[in-house]
Amino acid sequence: MAVNTNLDETHDPELTSWVESANKTGCDFPIQNLPFGIFRRRVGLDSPHAGIAIGDRILDLAVCLREGLLEGEAGRSAHACMGTSLNAFMEMGTAARRALRLEVSRLLRTDSVVDEGTRERILIPMDDAEMFLPAVIRDYTDFYASIHHATNVGSMFRPDNPLLPNYKWVPIGYHGRASSIVVSGTPVRRPCGQILAPESDVPARGPSRLLDYEGEVGFFVSHGNRLGETIPIQEAEDHLFGLCLVNDWSARDIQKWEYQPLGPFLAKSFATSLSPWIVTLEALAPFRVPSFKRAGGDPSPLAYLDDGDDRESGGIDLQVEVYLATESMRREGREPVLLSRAPFKEMYWTIAQMLTHHAGNGCNLQSGDLLASGTVSGPERGSRGSLLELTWRGSEPLKLSGGETRTFLQDGDEVIMRGFCAAQNAVRIGFGECRGIVQPAFA
Amino acid sequence: MAVNTNLDETHDPELTSWVESANKTGCDFPIQNLPFGIFRRRVGLDSPHAGIAIGDRILDLAVCLREGLLEGEAGRSAHACMGTSLNAFMEMGTAARRALRLEVSRLLRTDSVVDEGTRERILIPMDDAEMFLPAVIRDYTDFYASIHHATNVGSMFRPDNPLLPNYKWVPIGYHGRASSIVVSGTPVRRPCGQILAPESDVPARGPSRLLDYEGEVGFFVSHGNRLGETIPIQEAEDHLFGLCLVNDWSARDIQKWEYQPLGPFLAKSFATSLSPWIVTLEALAPFRVPSFKRAGGDPSPLAYLDDGDDRESGGIDLQVEVYLATESMRREGREPVLLSRAPFKEMYWTIAQMLTHHAGNGCNLQSGDLLASGTVSGPERGSRGSLLELTWRGSEPLKLSGGETRTFLQDGDEVIMRGFCAAQNAVRIGFGECRGIVQPAFA
Repeated sequence: MAVNTNLDETHDPELTSWVESANKTGCDFPIQNLPFGIFRRRVGLDSPHAGIAIGDRILDLAVCLREGLLEGEAGRSAHACMGTSLNAFMEMGTAARRALRLEVSRLLRTDSVVDEGTRERILIPMDDAEMFLPAVIRDYTDFYASIHHATNVGSMFRPDNPLLPNYKWVPIGYHGRASSIVVSGTPVRRPCGQILAPESDVPARGPSRLLDYEGEVGFFVSHGNRLGETIPIQEAEDHLFGLCLVNDWSARDIQKWEYQPLGPFLAKSFATSLSPWIVTLEALAPFRVPSFKRAGGDPSPLAYLDDGDDRESGGIDLQVEVYLATESMRREGREPVLLSRAPFKEMYWTIAQMLTHHAGNGCNLQSGDLLASGTVSGPERGSRGSLLELTWRGSEPLKLSGGETRTFLQDGDEVIMRGFCAAQNAVRIGFGECRGIVQPAFA
Repeated sequence: MAVNTNLDETHDPELTSWVESANKTGCDFPIQNLPFGIFRRRVGLDSPHAGIAIGDRILDLAVCLREGLLEGEAGRSAHACMGTSLNAFMEMGTAARRALRLEVSRLLRTDSVVDEGTRERILIPMDDAEMFLPAVIRDYTDFYASIHHATNVGSMFRPDNPLLPNYKWVPIGYHGRASSIVVSGTPVRRPCGQILAPESDVPARGPSRLLDYEGEVGFFVSHGNRLGETIPIQEAEDHLFGLCLVNDWSARDIQKWEYQPLGPFLAKSFATSLSPWIVTLEALAPFRVPSFKRAGGDPSPLAYLDDGDDRESGGIDLQVEVYLATESMRREGREPVLLSRAPFKEMYWTIAQMLTHHAGNGCNLQSGDLLASGTVSGPERGSRGSLLELTWRGSEPLKLSGGETRTFLQDGDEVIMRGFCAAQNAVRIGFGECRGIVQPAFA
């Protein structure tokens, strides 16, 4: 049975909060969401610690503890959130997370017993907070779980052989660089690297001209496994904490020249951006859907990846959007343009399958490890999660507003990712934003 | 100018130590070596901290500090060694490391002023110590720097295309898994994974049958660079702390099925073993040799990788040996057999080039990051650093003593790596051992 999919009182769509901004239609952070993040007040000397997003405010868990609002199991969970990362809290696992979620939900409800003065003290406006990476990410692994993305990219790089024979058997993934993961809002410098110009057989070093983003979904490990042991598929979700948005910035020209035979390296390791709020598996429970339905001729997953009955709820009905705001759009006050909206439920492999596969050789996962899905692309043109795919390697430039066009990213471009879940009988759950502006390469 | 290659009084081949075992011919840890490691006494409650290997003893830096033997800059360096890892000390950089080396050399010399009672207190026998990983390794990167290895492997996996066009331009590397790095002596469990049997087109999950080792050299980052900045080749060695031996255990059957298009993943991430003592760049100064001489038709390195005058000392004359001890050899008291001895100076890329390339896109390296060379193989059959190469993918089984043969590793096999530098007018410097016994796969 899939864990974390049970509905409880925290999911009640009728619930409202005394934080009024949380009740507005379209708000990313209603009381049914309650995502975790690490923040610090911009003014003052407090060190980074955990908070929970509610409307346009952050519930400060440190203040909640000081005010005696969280006791028992929820209090123990909140205490584990007082470090500069969520790792210790993640490590406590599903029950501890649920306990804190339930108490926080009760604190924030319209009928909460919390008095007016306390309500003011436990919240801070998001605008007054600086956000940090939510966890110390010891290892970062990036998968390749969208068959649409894999097929698109494959047809460009290997036209005669787009989808390799292992794709439908193996959740393909590779180790990414953990040190260069940055939180949303951090500027991203255009990388330099070796590039083989078309029709040249001698590479040169220079700034990447084919800078791209990849819109992905990340998922954090809560408690891990010991080296040499595996994680059965039925227990996989119990090892997961929650999800965020990931921009896996990619330099396509560097990638093309370097990636054989050992895979992408410097084409990716210059930066990876994360949205700051982790939406827990609990918040996503109302949006669980069947796993991707494999085509008739496709093989069934091998037994260790076979989620059996859980296929009914292995997927997540989450939309991943990518927007672009060029420098001139920002200067002229024009809105960012939507480049793509992709359905996460179309991924060929579920988050449980990716995690179980990762630990399938006895590799030890650790609290705070980040796994990412790979580019989320759907079957339609408007659901392609990278410029490589949207412009078909630059051959079909995008027309933006104001007469601008793009094949790949230019300096000053801001990429903005948003994500949300929506379903009948459930309140919309948002992921906030993952933003990054491209800075010029160093000369 | 290459850093760290200057000789000083610590390199004097005439120096001897009052630790008599350090003066024996063939000892790995003479007074000219002084490698750093993290240890704990097996008896008692002390927490892991830094020591320096000398003969068959460990100099306990905590006791040296307590006894007031290290003051000034050396004392500050030793204080940074009191954590459970060397990261803080690494971060202090080359000058701090040299200062501590000099004072420790003086303490341990035959003419040292340290009295008899103190001498007993500051040493512990290696046999009484448990060794740990020397650093918290945040990111681990594995290169592919032996052109002999790349050509051998390439001819097996891609007979028509053994050495890819990028090889002589790009120091090929990939991100490895940091969490499963273990210290020498840790048993290694045979991994399970997806394997495509020959002449089958349907994979099955099972224990790897083609388990292999790779004999490599690792190098630790001392102080890193900021995200977005690069490290010029002339400064590269100033960002390095020292070297160790690495066994990059590899499951060839898992690797073959999974590695395209994103590179090796579960074929490697089940375990990587490290020798516990880090031999500093200072200790290696007498063994610096010219960089690998490229063949006539080979391109020169691009400017950012061109070490210019440092080519005279870009290489390191280090031999990497791999021994095998089967279960029956150990039971019958037979010596491990030497499988290969490979010259590290034959690597196509230097450690400086690998580091500079890694940071060339602005990727931030951090103190304690581990870079590894990839399999060290030389041009001769007896210098091939993996069973894949030695048995030519299993087609030429190795004959061991006592009638045993091997194509790949069997359960109970112990792989032992040793490394040493030897040169005229210099005392032999050893790396100690990197050992690991293969345990059966979990059913």
